Amino acid sequence: MAEIQRLSLNQATTHNWSVKEAVEGCARHGIPSISLWRHKIAEAGLDECVRLVREAGLHVSSVCRGGMFPGVTAEDRQKNIEENFHAIDEAAALEADSLVMVVGAVAKIPIANARQMVMDGLKAIVPYAKQKGVRLGLEPLHPMYAGDRAVLNTAAQALEWASAYTPDEVGVVLDAFHIWWDPEIFHVIPRCAGRIYGFHVCDWLVPMPDMLLGRGMMGDGVIDNRALRLAVEKAGYTGPIEVEIFNQKLWDMPGDEVLDLMIQRFTALV
Amino acid sequence: MAEIQRLSLNQATTHNWSVKEAVEGCARHGIPSISLWRHKIAEAGLDECVRLVREAGLHVSSVCRGGMFPGVTAEDRQKNIEENFHAIDEAAALEADSLVMVVGAVAKIPIANARQMVMDGLKAIVPYAKQKGVRLGLEPLHPMYAGDRAVLNTAAQALEWASAYTPDEVGVVLDAFHIWWDPEIFHVIPRCAGRIYGFHVCDWLVPMPDMLLGRGMMGDGVIDNRALRLAVEKAGYTGPIEVEIFNQKLWDMPGDEVLDLMIQRFTALV
Repeated sequence: MAEIQRLSLNQATTHNWSVKEAVEGCARHGIPSISLWRHKIAEAGLDECVRLVREAGLHVSSVCRGGMFPGVTAEDRQKNIEENFHAIDEAAALEADSLVMVVGAVAKIPIANARQMVMDGLKAIVPYAKQKGVRLGLEPLHPMYAGDRAVLNTAAQALEWASAYTPDEVGVVLDAFHIWWDPEIFHVIPRCAGRIYGFHVCDWLVPMPDMLLGRGMMGDGVIDNRALRLAVEKAGYTGPIEVEIFNQKLWDMPGDEVLDLMIQRFTALV
Repeated sequence: MAEIQRLSLNQATTHNWSVKEAVEGCARHGIPSISLWRHKIAEAGLDECVRLVREAGLHVSSVCRGGMFPGVTAEDRQKNIEENFHAIDEAAALEADSLVMVVGAVAKIPIANARQMVMDGLKAIVPYAKQKGVRLGLEPLHPMYAGDRAVLNTAAQALEWASAYTPDEVGVVLDAFHIWWDPEIFHVIPRCAGRIYGFHVCDWLVPMPDMLLGRGMMGDGVIDNRALRLAVEKAGYTGPIEVEIFNQKLWDMPGDEVLDLMIQRFTALV
């Protein structure tokens, strides 16, 4: 059984809460870690976010998100790279375990080209991230997002890209929603040893109510989150486990009820 | 450029047409091959379907579909296997290039167990298929269907499962919609040489209007169908190329207009 000491609230799960509300929610419910999203950080102000998490004694498991490298023009791509520098600054200020990289995808750009743009973009930001002490966590996204969100779609591909750098520079972030279907996943996770920067849980609902906002609370779908947790632990990852759920019904619930349910499901099923 | 001699109408593309209408449509438009679905065969009667395709001089590229092996009880699974015997009989009578296997998935059954059930089911039907001269084509489905349609989700996995049998018994059916995102696909296709029983094209729309009925006509989305065609040809596959599109808007169009558009896009883009 996963202990609450491992739990991290990914702020996406309580979409309607500000950083302040999410931090206070974690404190009320005894959740020791949090993951912050950049648009929420922007709303609250970075300094205020740093103050809030420090005063609450919260650990920041990640900042979401860097990446989004592909762009039609060289100018677009340069702009995307500069945006990553800001993301790195925020992750550094918050002392996050890693900056989660959702690498991006643009429908107009052939997938092979987009993948090259991601590798180029990564190369352009690794030195700055290293200088700031920020680890970049490549998150493979489910293949159903390959056309418009991320051209990085399997754990093996993430590991391959990460392996161009040292295990302290670039690693992988494994989210059960994105990887549960992969016939190779239990072979790939052990190979990720030393590079696992984060692990996220949630569930895959059947039927899927919405491709983007249809993730489920653990136990409401078909994912064996525990098997995945045991695999990443066997590979040496003992850090925070984020619960990251994009789901309209959960977003419509009072945040404290979501946290109660999340803790119950996390300790029973993860 | 793909020539119309390679084109096969997968009957799913003209969902509202009976077998008779689809056969006559192919004849009118100079399409030499067709793929029939079992529920449409059942409506028309197998003998009548055999007569229709023979009189029209049509080649049957495949029968859709066998598979659907996982079941909660042993009785369910046995029933599923028996259903496959009927599917094999139909593919034999129609002299189809292969029986397409959509292997199945059941939300209640953990994915690892379901995968074992598929391998067991396949083992149970290969001898009968061989006896009837029917080749079984394993079709990997997009990972977004792993929870409720098919636990076979990559070309590499399909090849691995097929490799338990001879290249005349079990092969793979590669559908661009299901495999286009796969970072390994251009490495896996050459390894499939000698076992490619079919190749399907369509497109992946961005945004995806519907997870099931949101496939697009070639050219309306992000898939490079030509690159995939060239890869399967280089691997030795020179058989029919099916156009299989589940799309409500196309289904609402008159069938002849769909066929005109399909031929135009096929010859220009595949």
